Amino acid sequence: AVGSVVLVGAGPGDPGLLTLRALRALNEADVILHDRLVGAGVLALARRDAEQIEVGKQGGRHHTTQETIHALLLEHARAGRRVVRLKGGDPFVFGRGGEELEFLRAHAIPFEVVPGITAAVACAAFSGVPLTHRDHAQSVRFVTAHCRDSRDTLDWAALAQERQTLAIYMGVSELATLQARLIEHGRDATTPFALVENGSLPDQRVVCGVLGNLAERAAAHAVGSPALLILGEVAALAPSLAWFGAAP
Amino acid sequence: AVGSVVLVGAGPGDPGLLTLRALRALNEADVILHDRLVGAGVLALARRDAEQIEVGKQGGRHHTTQETIHALLLEHARAGRRVVRLKGGDPFVFGRGGEELEFLRAHAIPFEVVPGITAAVACAAFSGVPLTHRDHAQSVRFVTAHCRDSRDTLDWAALAQERQTLAIYMGVSELATLQARLIEHGRDATTPFALVENGSLPDQRVVCGVLGNLAERAAAHAVGSPALLILGEVAALAPSLAWFGAAP
Repeated sequence: AVGSVVLVGAGPGDPGLLTLRALRALNEADVILHDRLVGAGVLALARRDAEQIEVGKQGGRHHTTQETIHALLLEHARAGRRVVRLKGGDPFVFGRGGEELEFLRAHAIPFEVVPGITAAVACAAFSGVPLTHRDHAQSVRFVTAHCRDSRDTLDWAALAQERQTLAIYMGVSELATLQARLIEHGRDATTPFALVENGSLPDQRVVCGVLGNLAERAAAHAVGSPALLILGEVAALAPSLAWFGAAP
Repeated sequence: AVGSVVLVGAGPGDPGLLTLRALRALNEADVILHDRLVGAGVLALARRDAEQIEVGKQGGRHHTTQETIHALLLEHARAGRRVVRLKGGDPFVFGRGGEELEFLRAHAIPFEVVPGITAAVACAAFSGVPLTHRDHAQSVRFVTAHCRDSRDTLDWAALAQERQTLAIYMGVSELATLQARLIEHGRDATTPFALVENGSLPDQRVVCGVLGNLAERAAAHAVGSPALLILGEVAALAPSLAWFGAAP
């Protein structure tokens, strides 16, 4: 009999942010295909004798192509195994989960999806920055700026508008460009930000500032990946609502 | 000694979407102040002898004012209790969690935050609609349209732009207005949508269509609250990637 695939969001790294459904899927899996960024603490919750295969990508350099991942999913499911495809964060927020499901559907492999805590939601909670706020932001927008392609197709004028929170999934090398483009398109240079490195993990750091000194502040603190940028009036709350890890 | 408050996201209703941290907080709580929309299945996971207080709001009619919630949090924490403030979804996405923490900080009550699976992420996973997709949507925007106030201050021109997904937290009564405003501001009437009622729950229903027939389709299927609207090119995947509950 054909096996199945459960596409599972592992959350941002802290094993305590797995859902109960994700834990159950990890306990039942024969094979786990996981991204590189999924932490050891999460993988430790899997069934002892499950085969673990790292199919990670990092910083734009793809260690495993999407085609190879598809082929592995197909091979193991066709061998009758219960496969978990474990992704950092949530599989449907910048996770290419949709593409994997389209492939599985085309090959008649049954699947399920277990959502996860995406980085923006986790970093907000662990830095004390509400993504929306009655007084400051009526909407929140999740954006990726990982490569030249995504930078060039973004609608900067819309992103630069006030009273919305931007949660930007990006490489730290993109910060100078982000800062320049947003200011050029009208976002005020005094707009506060909170830049969260290793969100939810014991070594989390939060660097705060304003859009006008974003790249400078990040460089001064040597912020590395993974990092998530929360930009908007809500970020001004970070110093007063901090509760986890070192004060910003 | 003063107690503490843990602000916990309960997710969309399915107890399997609680995080392990949320479960631990529920197990340790002396008092649980919960929104009305938090399901019985979630509350059943709390410590047997914890006091449960419903401070729910529904559909804009506030059964308990925000001031009363603040006063209850303060009273129980000052009595030395471990308080869980349990909210549907995530506390920082349209949850007014920020306001509650500002109040607690002002009164020197220690707190923590446990993020939850917000409705947009849950409904996407359980309807098979990826919120972002390399070919269709480079960003996703979470918006609320719950009352006249929020409708009137939204930037409709920005919301009407292509190649972004909108995840709209709303009352079903808002659909006709949403449809009219988005089309009036240039969003194509053929933009697909997936409207998810009772997302993640056994009675989940997904109604699909295009922006031009949104209100009509919702009325024809008598869609009720809670419902979440996913609007954008990605919603065209709903029929082929459906895996949970009845086919759309």
